[in-house]
Amino acid sequence: MARIGATPGGGVHRLTLSDADREARDLFAKWCGEAGLSVAVDEMGNMFARRPGADEAAPPAMLGSHLDSVPCGGRFDGSLGVLAALEVVRSLNDRGLRTRRPLEIVNWTNEEGPRFPPAMLGSGVFCGKYARDWAYQVRDSEGRRFGEELARIGYQGTLPCRPRPLGCYLELHIEQGPVLETEKVQAGVVEGIVGIAWLRVTLKGERDHAGPTPMAMRRDALVGAARVIAAVRAMPAALHPDMVATVGELFVSPNAINVIPGRVTFSVDFRHRDEALMRRARERVLKAVEDAARGERLEVEVEDLGGSSPLPFHPEAVGAVEEACRAGGCSFRRMWSAAGHDARYAAELGPTAMIFIPCAGGKSHCEEEDAAWEDVARG
Amino acid sequence: MARIGATPGGGVHRLTLSDADREARDLFAKWCGEAGLSVAVDEMGNMFARRPGADEAAPPAMLGSHLDSVPCGGRFDGSLGVLAALEVVRSLNDRGLRTRRPLEIVNWTNEEGPRFPPAMLGSGVFCGKYARDWAYQVRDSEGRRFGEELARIGYQGTLPCRPRPLGCYLELHIEQGPVLETEKVQAGVVEGIVGIAWLRVTLKGERDHAGPTPMAMRRDALVGAARVIAAVRAMPAALHPDMVATVGELFVSPNAINVIPGRVTFSVDFRHRDEALMRRARERVLKAVEDAARGERLEVEVEDLGGSSPLPFHPEAVGAVEEACRAGGCSFRRMWSAAGHDARYAAELGPTAMIFIPCAGGKSHCEEEDAAWEDVARG
Repeated sequence: MARIGATPGGGVHRLTLSDADREARDLFAKWCGEAGLSVAVDEMGNMFARRPGADEAAPPAMLGSHLDSVPCGGRFDGSLGVLAALEVVRSLNDRGLRTRRPLEIVNWTNEEGPRFPPAMLGSGVFCGKYARDWAYQVRDSEGRRFGEELARIGYQGTLPCRPRPLGCYLELHIEQGPVLETEKVQAGVVEGIVGIAWLRVTLKGERDHAGPTPMAMRRDALVGAARVIAAVRAMPAALHPDMVATVGELFVSPNAINVIPGRVTFSVDFRHRDEALMRRARERVLKAVEDAARGERLEVEVEDLGGSSPLPFHPEAVGAVEEACRAGGCSFRRMWSAAGHDARYAAELGPTAMIFIPCAGGKSHCEEEDAAWEDVARG
Repeated sequence: MARIGATPGGGVHRLTLSDADREARDLFAKWCGEAGLSVAVDEMGNMFARRPGADEAAPPAMLGSHLDSVPCGGRFDGSLGVLAALEVVRSLNDRGLRTRRPLEIVNWTNEEGPRFPPAMLGSGVFCGKYARDWAYQVRDSEGRRFGEELARIGYQGTLPCRPRPLGCYLELHIEQGPVLETEKVQAGVVEGIVGIAWLRVTLKGERDHAGPTPMAMRRDALVGAARVIAAVRAMPAALHPDMVATVGELFVSPNAINVIPGRVTFSVDFRHRDEALMRRARERVLKAVEDAARGERLEVEVEDLGGSSPLPFHPEAVGAVEEACRAGGCSFRRMWSAAGHDARYAAELGPTAMIFIPCAGGKSHCEEEDAAWEDVARG
C-alpha cells in the first residue's frame, strides 16, 4: 500500500480524492474481494467491506481507519488501521471462525483534511455532524469542489451516507506522540479523543513598496501574523501542560521580496480534552488576533473551520481493550488521543475504542514516520 | 502599454521574461521604429533605441527605465520612465531638433527582481557588477533559468552586455513614497539611491503532528520565523528614522493545518543611505535569526541575494535637474530614493540623475499605483 503515492523520503503523499487515493482504494477493494468480502461505497466515498455474521440483522462490529495522508506524510497513519482490520478478517478466514455480528472494515474518506478541511469529513457526514451537500461544496485551495473530485475518481457511491447503529467500533493507530516509546510501554488504551478547534485567520493591511514607505505608515499583514504566531505558541503554557496550539499553514500575498505584504491568511489549530479550557484557549487566540490587528491597523476575518468537542470513549469498550492487553501479556497504559480520529464520530453510533502502538520518535505526519513490525503485530 | 498584463484591479502583472514582458517589448520596439529609432538588444535583453547625434562618436545621453513589473504591480513604475523618454524623442522629432550626443532610450531587463533576484540584473551586468553567465543561471521559484527564459521570449540579443561610457543618464520615475504628495511639491530632485540588502533566510526544524507532539518537544520553523519578522519590524527604530526593513516573501513547508512547520524560507530587505548603518542593520538581523533559531532549536541558512551600496548622484547632474525645475517654474525638493533603480548602476558609467513625480497616496508596487497626468507631463 505504501508504494502508492510513495515519496523519495520513504513516506506517502496521498491526498484525499487524488489519483493516488483512487489507486489506494482500488487496491484495498481488490484485497477485500480476495478475502471474500463484499465492498459497498457510500455517497461520501466511505468504503465498507463486509464479512457476514451469524446474526446478519445485528449492527456490525466495525474496524478500520483511512487510506488518505497529509502532504508528504507517513506510511502508517491510517493505513495501519485499515490493513490491520483486513488482517483480522484473513485470520478469521484462516481459522474458519464465524462471528455473531457481521464485521465491516471501513476506509473513511478525508480523515486528514488539509486538502478539504475539516478533517474527518467522511465519518463526520456518516455520524450526522455535517450535511452531505455541505461536504460536496467544500473547495480545495485550487477551487475544486469535494463532490466533483469524488465523482472524478469514481468513488461517489450510491449507498446513503447517514447514521446507522454500530455494534462496536475499534481502530488501531500509531500513537503519533512520544509517550509509549519514552515510557517503553507496548500499547496505549485510548480513553477518549481531545477536542480540536480549527480557525482560519485573514489579516488585511496595505501592500506597498518596501523601500519608500516609512515604517510608521506601514500596515504590514505579515508583521501582524507574526505576532499572532508568537502568541499562539505561548498560549498553551498559560492554560494547561497538555494543551497544544499550532499555526501550520500560512499564505502571504503578494509574496514578493520588495513588497510589503498586504494580506496574510493562516490557520490556528488547538486541542485539549477539557471543553472549558478549549473555550478559554479560543478567547486567547481571538484576543491575540485583535491585539495584533490593532497594532498594525489591519482588518481581520476569522473563519471557523470546524472541529470537534472532547469525547471520552465507552468505558466497556475501553475496558475490553485493557482486558485484551492483560490477556495477551502486553504492557499498556491508558491515555487520551491528542490527534483526531474517525473513532471520534463512530463513538456517537456505538461503543468505541482505540488501540495505540508506539511509533519511532513519536513522529508522524512526516516521511520519517515509522513503527516496529513487532509492535504492529501486537497491536 | 498598461493593457499588456493588465489586472482586474487596474494594475499590471508583467514579470520579467514572461509572455507579457515579451509583448511589452514588442510594442516598445514597434513604437521606437515609428519614431525613427534603431533598436539594439544586448545579451541580457536590455533594449537600446538610438537617435543619432551630431557627434556620433560621443557617448550617448541615455534616458529610460524598465517595462517589467512586480506581481500585480502598477502602471507607472518603470513604464513611465521608458515612455517619457520616447515622448522626449518624439518632441525632438516634432521640432526637428538635433542633439550633439546621440540619444538612447533604454528598457532594462529585470529591474524588479521578484522572479529572478537580485533586482536590477540587466543594468547590473551592463555596469559590470554581475557576470553575464552568472545571471543566466539564476533560477525562478519554479526552477527555470534566467538564460533559458530570455531565449524563450526571443530577447537574447547578440550585442555584448558590458560597461561603456555614458555621456549622461536620466530617469523619470514616480516617487513611490508619500513625501512629495504630503508636502505638495511638484518634483523630487534625487540626490542618490540608498543602499539595499536582500537576504534569504531558511529555518529548519522538525515537521510533526500538530496534536500529539508536546509543546516542549517542538522545533517549529514558523515560530522561529515569526520571531525574526517581529525583530526585523522593530530594528529600524533602533537605528535611524529613515531606515526601513521588510519581510515580504515567506514560504512554509509542508504548509498544512495539522502539521508543525518543518521548514520556512523568507526574505529580508533593508535599506538606508549610510553604509555604516547598513552594516549595523545586517548584524542586528543576523543576531535576530540566531536568537530565534536557538530558542526553537532550528538549523539556519542565510543566503546573500545581493543588493547595492548607497550611491550619491553626480552633483552636476543633480544640479541640472534642479535648474530645469527652476527654469520651468516647478516646485521641487531634494531627496534620496529609498527604492532601487537602474540609475544606481548607470551612475557608475556617467553623470546620472533622476526626477521624481508625486504618486497617489505614495503607493506603488500595487494595482492602486497612480499619478496625475499633469504631474507626468511636468516630470
